[in-house]
Amino acid sequence: MVVGAGPLPLSPPAHWTLRQDGACFAPRGRRAPAFAGITKEMFAMKMPSDAPTTGQCAWFGLAAVAMIGLAPLSAKAEEGMWTFENFPTARAQADLGWAPDAGWLQRVQSSAVRLSSGCSASFVSGSGLVLTNWHCVSDCVASLSSARNDLAAKGFLARTLAEEKTCPGVSGDVLLSTADVTARVNAALDGVSPAERATARANVISAIEEEACTGKDNQKYRCDVVSLYRGGRYSLYTYRTYKDMRLSFAPETAAGFFGGDPDNFNFPRFALDAAFLRAWEDGRPVTPVTHLPWSTTVPAQGDPVLVAGNPGSTQRLLTVRQLAFTRDWLLPTRQLVRSELRGMIAQYRSLGREQRRSGEAASFGIENSWKAQNGQMRALMDPEFFAIKQREEADLRARVAADPELAAEIGDPWADIEAILVRQQALFYRHDFLEARAGSISELYGVARQIVRMAAEAEKPAAQRIPGYSDTAMRSARTRLLEVTPVYRDLERIGLTLWLTKAQEYLGADDPAVRTLLGNVSAVEQATRLATGTRLNEARVRRALLDGGQAAVLASTDPMIRFVLANDAAAREIAAQWRREVVGPTDAAAQKIATARFRVYGDALYPDATFTLRLSYGRAMGWSAQGQDVPYVTTIGGLFQRATGAYPFNLAPSWASARGRLDPVTPFNIVSTNDIIGGNSGSPLINRNGEVVGAVFDGNIHSLGGDFAYDGRTNRSVSVTTAAITEALRHVYGADHLVTELAAR
Amino acid sequence: MVVGAGPLPLSPPAHWTLRQDGACFAPRGRRAPAFAGITKEMFAMKMPSDAPTTGQCAWFGLAAVAMIGLAPLSAKAEEGMWTFENFPTARAQADLGWAPDAGWLQRVQSSAVRLSSGCSASFVSGSGLVLTNWHCVSDCVASLSSARNDLAAKGFLARTLAEEKTCPGVSGDVLLSTADVTARVNAALDGVSPAERATARANVISAIEEEACTGKDNQKYRCDVVSLYRGGRYSLYTYRTYKDMRLSFAPETAAGFFGGDPDNFNFPRFALDAAFLRAWEDGRPVTPVTHLPWSTTVPAQGDPVLVAGNPGSTQRLLTVRQLAFTRDWLLPTRQLVRSELRGMIAQYRSLGREQRRSGEAASFGIENSWKAQNGQMRALMDPEFFAIKQREEADLRARVAADPELAAEIGDPWADIEAILVRQQALFYRHDFLEARAGSISELYGVARQIVRMAAEAEKPAAQRIPGYSDTAMRSARTRLLEVTPVYRDLERIGLTLWLTKAQEYLGADDPAVRTLLGNVSAVEQATRLATGTRLNEARVRRALLDGGQAAVLASTDPMIRFVLANDAAAREIAAQWRREVVGPTDAAAQKIATARFRVYGDALYPDATFTLRLSYGRAMGWSAQGQDVPYVTTIGGLFQRATGAYPFNLAPSWASARGRLDPVTPFNIVSTNDIIGGNSGSPLINRNGEVVGAVFDGNIHSLGGDFAYDGRTNRSVSVTTAAITEALRHVYGADHLVTELAAR
Repeated sequence: MVVGAGPLPLSPPAHWTLRQDGACFAPRGRRAPAFAGITKEMFAMKMPSDAPTTGQCAWFGLAAVAMIGLAPLSAKAEEGMWTFENFPTARAQADLGWAPDAGWLQRVQSSAVRLSSGCSASFVSGSGLVLTNWHCVSDCVASLSSARNDLAAKGFLARTLAEEKTCPGVSGDVLLSTADVTARVNAALDGVSPAERATARANVISAIEEEACTGKDNQKYRCDVVSLYRGGRYSLYTYRTYKDMRLSFAPETAAGFFGGDPDNFNFPRFALDAAFLRAWEDGRPVTPVTHLPWSTTVPAQGDPVLVAGNPGSTQRLLTVRQLAFTRDWLLPTRQLVRSELRGMIAQYRSLGREQRRSGEAASFGIENSWKAQNGQMRALMDPEFFAIKQREEADLRARVAADPELAAEIGDPWADIEAILVRQQALFYRHDFLEARAGSISELYGVARQIVRMAAEAEKPAAQRIPGYSDTAMRSARTRLLEVTPVYRDLERIGLTLWLTKAQEYLGADDPAVRTLLGNVSAVEQATRLATGTRLNEARVRRALLDGGQAAVLASTDPMIRFVLANDAAAREIAAQWRREVVGPTDAAAQKIATARFRVYGDALYPDATFTLRLSYGRAMGWSAQGQDVPYVTTIGGLFQRATGAYPFNLAPSWASARGRLDPVTPFNIVSTNDIIGGNSGSPLINRNGEVVGAVFDGNIHSLGGDFAYDGRTNRSVSVTTAAITEALRHVYGADHLVTELAAR
Repeated sequence: MVVGAGPLPLSPPAHWTLRQDGACFAPRGRRAPAFAGITKEMFAMKMPSDAPTTGQCAWFGLAAVAMIGLAPLSAKAEEGMWTFENFPTARAQADLGWAPDAGWLQRVQSSAVRLSSGCSASFVSGSGLVLTNWHCVSDCVASLSSARNDLAAKGFLARTLAEEKTCPGVSGDVLLSTADVTARVNAALDGVSPAERATARANVISAIEEEACTGKDNQKYRCDVVSLYRGGRYSLYTYRTYKDMRLSFAPETAAGFFGGDPDNFNFPRFALDAAFLRAWEDGRPVTPVTHLPWSTTVPAQGDPVLVAGNPGSTQRLLTVRQLAFTRDWLLPTRQLVRSELRGMIAQYRSLGREQRRSGEAASFGIENSWKAQNGQMRALMDPEFFAIKQREEADLRARVAADPELAAEIGDPWADIEAILVRQQALFYRHDFLEARAGSISELYGVARQIVRMAAEAEKPAAQRIPGYSDTAMRSARTRLLEVTPVYRDLERIGLTLWLTKAQEYLGADDPAVRTLLGNVSAVEQATRLATGTRLNEARVRRALLDGGQAAVLASTDPMIRFVLANDAAAREIAAQWRREVVGPTDAAAQKIATARFRVYGDALYPDATFTLRLSYGRAMGWSAQGQDVPYVTTIGGLFQRATGAYPFNLAPSWASARGRLDPVTPFNIVSTNDIIGGNSGSPLINRNGEVVGAVFDGNIHSLGGDFAYDGRTNRSVSVTTAAITEALRHVYGADHLVTELAAR
């Protein structure tokens, strides 16, 4: 699946750290395997390739630098992830023969929901019912399951409101308003050296966010500054937040993930990748301001369809040299490490039923991310694809050179980036293995590091802290750290073993930091010692450390805490060096290129994806590749033809027994030309009437280059139709009460 | 370790098939993990990148095509893996100030031994004692071990001749003579279309080999036609073969592989990577024609040293387009699959002591191969490295273009290769997953395929068989298939699971061949069914099938035999297509380029490595990289300093207790500029007096690009000194009887 995003930092990203598996990591707030889960891993593929991270999640907010930019040249037809305030109405009108008006846009914006599981969603009833994907709630399903009650295998349906179950750590955001704060941010950066820039920016953004939310109930509102257009614009986003999202319906894995990894990123497809949550507040279902009417009329081929959701990250404006670095260093390194993790998890899961179950979420995430990154590597290794990016850059540079005034103003940021990349490559392994991806899929390592750093940073004045440790950020982190979620020690051990082994491999056995990590035992022994010895899985242990602050942390005998205390200095050092030598300078150069783009191509541009609300317009349409025409829609009948009985093409028993009741011609999955990416998972597919007609859950194989460029000839979004969802609710799951609720207008 | 080669086909290569892990696979003759073992895996890294294989081992003999070529431009100082008959005496004299004379060359040739474990070795006593590497006998040690008697952990020392133990399936070859058969081969190829060329060549080579060995005892002689200079020359090599190689001494893993994977391909090193075999025949130790005198005098920095051994394969003459294919398709695909296998084996080995032991050989091989291929990828991704190859090709093409007669004669083979590569890329996954690498590390899958194919091919006249199924080849295969070696069903299952999962992933779940492979169950289920159900691990079952021929095979109910019978048609079809569209045409184009090289640069050239006897000259010498000088030698005292106690830097207990008796200044490992590659493992390091002063066991990290080019500034061979071996035999292992035998002249 391409379009799931991952449990993204919805409070200040500082609380989240990047991890070995590329996931954005929240110290608590999701159950253990969730951290390797499908949606998070998806985000891994969207990581800025030149990764100017600070050790925190870098794709939006504070540290969002390299992935944020402008559309190259002018956007091609149906390309673009547009902000609602800058939707290109005239262009859409020209392309589609129709465009949404202001009322349409306002209704859709108010109905769109962003999930902290890293997905998108929408209100689809007046009683707070929210449509999203099965794979966006699969972590929730797993956390509500146990070895004896495997809801992933059985599916979940609440027959009454009382049966709905809270998804731990999942919240939903509705965007209320945006405000331009560019001038204030730029004023704070004026005269700041590139090396200090990352920290200065973090501080001013943090200040704006705290001010904006002052006086608001932080259980109900959140305020984020978003860096758009690669620092060309800063925007304050204010959200209404719903903290109690309850599971109402999720199909069993065999239906939600029919076709499994082989079908992932492919089409034709036959997956009921849909689920319902319900927003609750103060013990009652929420009544949203508005919701999308439910329509089971399937768009005809060529009909306009729109997608409102939160694409996570794109990198369409990296320079050619940054793309080459991505192709030759970043992706191969991470993909090779991920392949090993893939093999470890696969082998582990083959050991028995409980191993299979407990490793499922991790496996989903890794498989998905692997395939996505493989597609990215293939795209970048394609000489023709790369040549397009070279031509685009050459065009911009030629135009800059032809404008002496502009050229004098911006200098040569491409040369700056080339120089930065030399440092970036030299620091890359060290930053990845000691800081950005330290711990791999071990959740408790992340917990320990978060606790240790919070205790240390809390002792300092706000302006002297490392990015991401504002008071607000630490409050949110504390809440997540205290949530109760299961931890699988075997997975902890696997993640730590992989991390320590690879750190030794890539940094060398004689590296002093590596020697400290291993502490005179082997990687396997150290991982086992930490995974089996730590008690950080117990909420009361975490609470005691959080309450006790620096004194409690320094006095702790927990082996994971001691381990982090012994190793954090080296991690902090490389993180600081990375901010100084990579993030800040890249940020400064990128902003110059952004300036050049605005000046040369004007402002009919969309920013790179930032996991904030966007609208993409397109049409329901198949495609042709290698002489083969792929029709735009599949049917429920096709599912039964494709089912072989063998995993992952095994039919769910509920579907097998419902076969006679289902209308085989019901459209099942559908493709459209909308420009989406990971984070869009669960986005409503909307017709011109503003009705929801599907839920986006994937892209086709040709969409995998979408991180770097959109090719409208073959790039397709994949959605499950509301028609199929309705048919399944009624005839497979006996959920007539939901059908009735959806039909009410 | 770079220099181990792998259990290479020393009888006609037809009996061996390429496998998923890149290993050259003998159906029987080594114990199970050996098939994934270190030496075999090493060869994987030497696979011709444009892989014009026929499904058989392709790097020498019948199908040796793309890896055989000429030195680019003229060889640089100390570059070159020279045949003994074409040793560049004048050049060596100029470079070293000394060169070996004819007598020196003859003595060394007669002392050099090639091992069927894919390694090199040498006679070092008049009683048939053979020096090689620990890692060249580690498979043998494992096959002589059991869960209760772990010789890998304890080491092995025969205190008397009677205690020496036969290494199953290992034989030793001494090269007696070579003869030019180019004219006869070319006559048989005259007028043959490129598509038919591979088969025609296999047939004529097979005929020459059979004739040459007619009347000779095939237990004592072997005759191989070797394709040198990319088909520019064919040479008949006649060997004296010793079939009973017995283990005399091997250190424990902690000493032989001190530093483990982290130190592999690195220097400074402290490994006693040495072992002794003894050639036996007719129940007695062999008295070799000659042997290398043992000297414990360590070469001084700058002293000339020579390496006589069998480099497995190099690819120094691939065209730039072939190299790009290697970089962008071949290496990434195989390395990603290998990384998953790496993770699976690592996770499996973490489950317990016996898993750790039984997976050790597989792990060695995979780790080594992974690192080697990673080095190759890094070399090819280095723009400067690639530019050298581009310049070399441009130079040759310019010179050809400047010679109208030559240009008319050879046409444009570079364009031919470009066209072939389009087909090669289109067929690549299919050929890899259905034929070349089918089965991954499953030994019994290979056994089954070999038995099924032998039964079918035996029904046909010789000229109509697929390459590699001559009567001689099948006789040798039968011998190996009947040897008794342990099989680890868990490793079988892991290999089959990986293979089937990846076949489904890369070829697609809807591919008819994939559907037949999986047979309506999941990959894991199918792998488990085959691995647990087959009885091909029993020699009597194999014998019954071999004796019963086609009728017995077709009537077999063994699940692995039924599986191969169901799937072999698709494998044979892609293999035939590959021969027709890739191997034959590549061969024809390569021979044209070889012709051009001979014509342009003359004949002061060395052929690409072919796992046949070569001599490399160089000097004992350290190197400088990134401003650091690396001294050329380490000492035994350094071992004790480097030991941390933690695997893989844990000291063997035997060494710990011997510390007081060992002279700490004894030189331990040494580097020299000799141009070597996988297959050279165990080669004697020889001084100008013709005395052995060490055993080559590795290359440094800079040697990993050596597959494609030699860079004398940094490329170094790593040897263990005879001085250290002697010191250890005497003071660690109490093997004074061996020291006495070695000292006798």
